[in-house]
Amino acid sequence: MAERLVVIGGDAGGMGAATAARRLRPDLEIIAFERGAYTSYSACGIPYAVGGEVASLDDLVVRTPAQFREANDIEVRIHHEVTELDVDHRQVAVHDLRWGATERVDFDLLVIGTGARPRRPELPGIDHPRIMGVQTLDDGARLLAAKDAPRVVVVGGGYIGLEIAEAFLHRGAAVTVLERSKEVLGGLDPDMGAVVSAAMRRHGIDVRCGCPAIGFEAGSESNTVVVRTGDGPIEADLVVLGLGVAPNSELAATAGLRLGAAGAIGVDRRQHTSAEGVWAAGDCCESHHLVTGEATYNPLGTVANKQALVAGTNIGGGYATFPGVVGTAVSKICDTEVARTGLNEVEARRAGYQVHVATIEATTRAGYFPGAAPIRVKMIAERRSGRLLGAQIVGEEGAAKRIDVVATALHAGLTVEQMTSLDLSYAPPFSPAWDPVLVAARKVATMIGP
Amino acid sequence: MAERLVVIGGDAGGMGAATAARRLRPDLEIIAFERGAYTSYSACGIPYAVGGEVASLDDLVVRTPAQFREANDIEVRIHHEVTELDVDHRQVAVHDLRWGATERVDFDLLVIGTGARPRRPELPGIDHPRIMGVQTLDDGARLLAAKDAPRVVVVGGGYIGLEIAEAFLHRGAAVTVLERSKEVLGGLDPDMGAVVSAAMRRHGIDVRCGCPAIGFEAGSESNTVVVRTGDGPIEADLVVLGLGVAPNSELAATAGLRLGAAGAIGVDRRQHTSAEGVWAAGDCCESHHLVTGEATYNPLGTVANKQALVAGTNIGGGYATFPGVVGTAVSKICDTEVARTGLNEVEARRAGYQVHVATIEATTRAGYFPGAAPIRVKMIAERRSGRLLGAQIVGEEGAAKRIDVVATALHAGLTVEQMTSLDLSYAPPFSPAWDPVLVAARKVATMIGP
Repeated sequence: MAERLVVIGGDAGGMGAATAARRLRPDLEIIAFERGAYTSYSACGIPYAVGGEVASLDDLVVRTPAQFREANDIEVRIHHEVTELDVDHRQVAVHDLRWGATERVDFDLLVIGTGARPRRPELPGIDHPRIMGVQTLDDGARLLAAKDAPRVVVVGGGYIGLEIAEAFLHRGAAVTVLERSKEVLGGLDPDMGAVVSAAMRRHGIDVRCGCPAIGFEAGSESNTVVVRTGDGPIEADLVVLGLGVAPNSELAATAGLRLGAAGAIGVDRRQHTSAEGVWAAGDCCESHHLVTGEATYNPLGTVANKQALVAGTNIGGGYATFPGVVGTAVSKICDTEVARTGLNEVEARRAGYQVHVATIEATTRAGYFPGAAPIRVKMIAERRSGRLLGAQIVGEEGAAKRIDVVATALHAGLTVEQMTSLDLSYAPPFSPAWDPVLVAARKVATMIGP
Repeated sequence: MAERLVVIGGDAGGMGAATAARRLRPDLEIIAFERGAYTSYSACGIPYAVGGEVASLDDLVVRTPAQFREANDIEVRIHHEVTELDVDHRQVAVHDLRWGATERVDFDLLVIGTGARPRRPELPGIDHPRIMGVQTLDDGARLLAAKDAPRVVVVGGGYIGLEIAEAFLHRGAAVTVLERSKEVLGGLDPDMGAVVSAAMRRHGIDVRCGCPAIGFEAGSESNTVVVRTGDGPIEADLVVLGLGVAPNSELAATAGLRLGAAGAIGVDRRQHTSAEGVWAAGDCCESHHLVTGEATYNPLGTVANKQALVAGTNIGGGYATFPGVVGTAVSKICDTEVARTGLNEVEARRAGYQVHVATIEATTRAGYFPGAAPIRVKMIAERRSGRLLGAQIVGEEGAAKRIDVVATALHAGLTVEQMTSLDLSYAPPFSPAWDPVLVAARKVATMIGP
């Protein structure tokens, strides 16, 4: 009888692993269970579907269950939730959410790709039906159904929160963003985040920093909700949670698997969990941070895809490792491009580093070239060693993707002095003769002692 | 008496060195001699001034002689040509091109920044007055004066040749490009160059590959020139040479300085020439190629700026080294972005490497995102070691700057296997979840043997 690989969860982590395993093992029987209606989609695209830049949620689907069956010989059962994992007996219990039946399914190999869910703060009234998250395509469908809400409050000023705020602005809503901290985008230092909140305010979004939501209650009309804040109540037709996500790791925890950073499923460098023959990939599991050397939780599509490829290669009998992440992220909010990698200044100091920090302003193209736009680069290096620790970029068109140079330098462990001589490309339509990343590296390199 | 630094040549190499030296040595007397009318300008911008995208050649001037005097206490004498260098007696002979006088000027320290000149092939009729080069601002002024030429022939299909071809197309000219080799852009492999020549033909430029100019003669009217080719004669109102540049190293050679790669001035890692107290920077001198480990001639503005900073720091009594280049270049031609770094396939094989090569096609943004444009990446890795040797990118908007990731990886000596896990930034407006550079690295990594 054929060996059976069971996939728990239909997101990019699990399905990517299954696809990679299939390439190496045509003989495997592969069955995937997904509790929602979709598999293998770009969750990062949801704000753009809500905002109307992408025509339909269907555009975000990379591969449907039918396509998995056709192209990869993978059987996908949607609306099926795995409710129990028995590692010792190599069985899962699967609940059919439409018909209510539960069956037990044997497995030889298992990959967990249960993804993540939006964090919901434990606040009074949090279960009000007009409070929604942004993570799955099912969430996306609910948001699209609510796209004409005239007043929207976004709770939490992370990337997703700000992207969804802009999406509803595009739809014509009056949008308020509530952020607990002193600035939006906790991935950036506050001085860089302030550039983004200023841009959002110029576009007409009411960004309130240092102003957390403290509770919710029914509004004056049905289908409205009042958000209570320290500044007073705000009535809204829709509240969207942008507080980040938490890993769906409960099933694994109950089965006795080791959890790691932020409660995500612990994995080794081959994406193997603590249970023999059980693998995990994607937003449900942890990563290794190459700058701090510690476990981290970095639930992003790029990471999920890489982990999936590694897990699937190993499941298929090959050999692959995922060395880890350097904490890269990018977004575009109200025509402002934002990117970060490595550690920001706050994170670096919290990790015990003494640092030199430089911030420079430059242009994305030669200053005299049409379309030259402002770009600000902040770079952080370790004291004495001069080791690059991280950078942040905020700017207009053409600014953000430069972060990839810094990410690559972090992987390679370069010093900022070494970075000053990087042979980066230059022509007037693309860059000043000194690329802004080099200007930042030069400035911070001059601070390193002899 | 103050020590005196003499600068030969007013281009970015010499003037940048002088500026950096000034910061460390306020006491130095600094005199620069430039035979033309301009100092410290962006030669790379000339095609855009000719094409009209940049309003004026003046926009390309980074710093005028008056500004050097005011801001840096550097005396610049334009229209002064250094005709002799006497290293033993620490003197230069300077010829005033306006008044004809020659004087001898003592120096303690010397930096040579004489730049480069367009290569002129030894062909019959090459001295016809309607045959022009593109290198100095004086060249730019001549081209601008000829901008209404209805028929333009560009001889040579390198970056500058193609950029100037497009510039005259913008001006409404009928433009022909003659390229000796089988494809344009010798910095690319022919399969990648073909994408560019196809784009140019779609825009209406007559690109003829395998078709060198073999001579020139007077045309049927005054101010016209006939270009002879194997395909027959082409009458033009203007011929522009795009055959690359040669270093202005004759003065240094006559003075007994060691010449290096391609006849450029030989320098060590501190930009010091073979003569004590004599430095060089910019298009007149060689570089070290970090991939081949050999001396190379890489006359680009970025390299000139880095060399200048290193030379000036050392002249000023500091310590700096220029490790070298990896051969990065970028251009935009007829809406097609082109970039390269490291070795292309032809160069790698010529250098004796056995290689694996992969070419992939992808999009610049998530496939479903508005503005997603095609991008093609070709990547070359050494057989067995898997060491990255180089890459080329051709695509539309947002494609080319990705070459910087590859350039950084070359500096760090990464393998293509290591590149597959680079934590590059992803959001739908910026990239597919697998950045095209990673897709290329993955493909070539699968070819490396166990």
